[in-house]
Amino acid sequence: MKVIEEYKEKVNFYLMKFLEGKFDKNKDISPEVKDLIEDVIDYAYERGGKRVRPITLTFAYKCFKEGDEALKASIAIELMQAYLLIHDDIMDKSDLRRGKATIHEIYKKRYNEHMGTSMAILAGDLCFGYIYDAIADSGFGEKEKVEAMKHIGWILEREIYGQTLDLLLDFKEIKEEDVWKIYEYKTATYTMQGPIYLGCALAGVNDERVEKLQEYAYNVGVAFQIQDDINGIFGEVDKTGKPNVDDAKEGKKTLLIVKGLEMCRDEDKKFILKKWGDEKISEKEIEKIKKILKDCGALDYCKKKLDELIEKGKSSIKDVELRDEGKKFLLDMADYVRSLC
Amino acid sequence: MKVIEEYKEKVNFYLMKFLEGKFDKNKDISPEVKDLIEDVIDYAYERGGKRVRPITLTFAYKCFKEGDEALKASIAIELMQAYLLIHDDIMDKSDLRRGKATIHEIYKKRYNEHMGTSMAILAGDLCFGYIYDAIADSGFGEKEKVEAMKHIGWILEREIYGQTLDLLLDFKEIKEEDVWKIYEYKTATYTMQGPIYLGCALAGVNDERVEKLQEYAYNVGVAFQIQDDINGIFGEVDKTGKPNVDDAKEGKKTLLIVKGLEMCRDEDKKFILKKWGDEKISEKEIEKIKKILKDCGALDYCKKKLDELIEKGKSSIKDVELRDEGKKFLLDMADYVRSLC
Repeated sequence: MKVIEEYKEKVNFYLMKFLEGKFDKNKDISPEVKDLIEDVIDYAYERGGKRVRPITLTFAYKCFKEGDEALKASIAIELMQAYLLIHDDIMDKSDLRRGKATIHEIYKKRYNEHMGTSMAILAGDLCFGYIYDAIADSGFGEKEKVEAMKHIGWILEREIYGQTLDLLLDFKEIKEEDVWKIYEYKTATYTMQGPIYLGCALAGVNDERVEKLQEYAYNVGVAFQIQDDINGIFGEVDKTGKPNVDDAKEGKKTLLIVKGLEMCRDEDKKFILKKWGDEKISEKEIEKIKKILKDCGALDYCKKKLDELIEKGKSSIKDVELRDEGKKFLLDMADYVRSLC
Repeated sequence: MKVIEEYKEKVNFYLMKFLEGKFDKNKDISPEVKDLIEDVIDYAYERGGKRVRPITLTFAYKCFKEGDEALKASIAIELMQAYLLIHDDIMDKSDLRRGKATIHEIYKKRYNEHMGTSMAILAGDLCFGYIYDAIADSGFGEKEKVEAMKHIGWILEREIYGQTLDLLLDFKEIKEEDVWKIYEYKTATYTMQGPIYLGCALAGVNDERVEKLQEYAYNVGVAFQIQDDINGIFGEVDKTGKPNVDDAKEGKKTLLIVKGLEMCRDEDKKFILKKWGDEKISEKEIEKIKKILKDCGALDYCKKKLDELIEKGKSSIKDVELRDEGKKFLLDMADYVRSLC
């Protein structure tokens, strides 16, 4: 989407301005504090990113009001992502994020493993606080700020519950309903519902149109996760820019896999259970799993769900009275999510 | 202080009400989420605590306005403490908190070590979000809420920088100025300065009286840390309720120890460096260190600093026009901190 490219630069401007402000104000406390803020700036800004979430927030605002006033506040949701990813990296034991060392890896190399964990906890905590600071700093009225902060609390709480479900799933048999719950709490909340709630709150809107937008957000948010899962194994690296072996190595519990296990033959189930999550899984074995998921109908099941979610999302806002600029963005966004697959 | 006992129950009432609300609203998401919130309630509420910080906030408010309106918001600072302690417990590798297993220990036993760390990160994050929720939920006007949230951001940021300094101190030679900086950022901020800023913000006051109160808060806050350090080795367990061997075993870098290392004879310095931080340090060796700290003048130095800080704190508010109820509490609090030693 062309508009994403255009607005990305605008988000980057405010994001950098905010982070530079933090740096300038605190860099002289000590060299260690200076390093920490620099690491956070590198992680949250320098490594790039599409900035889809803050842009979605900005256009949710544009559903009701003209102008780019929401941009300065929109960086809150990008700082939230930095917080979530830094802490998730610890929990997932991820070494790399966008091709560079994760925060806990940086400090592990600089000091030791426990310091890696400790400093990444602190870096994430720092970004957590920055989320609220960005709203306080946003130039909106106090009423809008308080409403936005309440929604941020709602998003963060659901994210934490979603991550709890995700982590503890390793210790019990996974059912399809567990996966849907995680998609709702962990993905839809901060990918779509959060940005849209915040956009509405900043526009001072709190009526049935918000409910409709939330229906859109839930459906498109979950659809986003399902396309991500499909691309996580069926995607072409050239197109997605992401390796399509990571999910397999990590043993990610996606709808596609859970459904595959349910629908495939017993011997195929044994094969998936043995290989999915094996760090040494070969290209050939991944190809075999892809064939199983295709043949048993799990891939079609997920693609059908994806289409249904996209359609449901789009139709929930089609007849709602919203400003064209905002509505067009959201409808295009739904098609864009669909097109990624 | 009798007033602390009386107000403790009031703080507990609002704290429990808030946490029960979170529990009731989210307990049905899944058994895992229910467990997590129960663990947080146990940690932040059931295990007790003097609630000195929220009470200080309430009386800072009373410096300007009559009534207990600030109580409901005051639990924010108690939830902040829960967040700080849960994450600090991970970093300090502490197994126990108030005689019961820390969150990471609970989940380590329930699952495994990495899950212990992960779930404690999430539990701390949950409390972090609760801080802001408590303010949003407090019944104050939007202006006061936004001011309070800005101060919370200020406190949290300084805490994180203070903890960064503290952790990374292990990797360089400690100087007295480092210790003072940590006391300022890590202790004074959330023990005294934070609660007092929040009390003022909720009362809608933002003039030179706040500056004077901050002078009080910095001095008494640092004094509190110094008495804690002295009691950490010289305290009688019967009186303080805390073991007086933990600091030695942990190798806590206190002003008392740093000053002792600077002032004592070379052979005594070698002895302290060898034994301070040794988990197997004996009672006899601790007694020897106590004697060294006394003989070289480090104990007297710290006691003198403590007295100076208390006096400076008290005199900064003596002539400021404040409501009697609030002012009396703060002056008594300074004497109380002094009396603990």
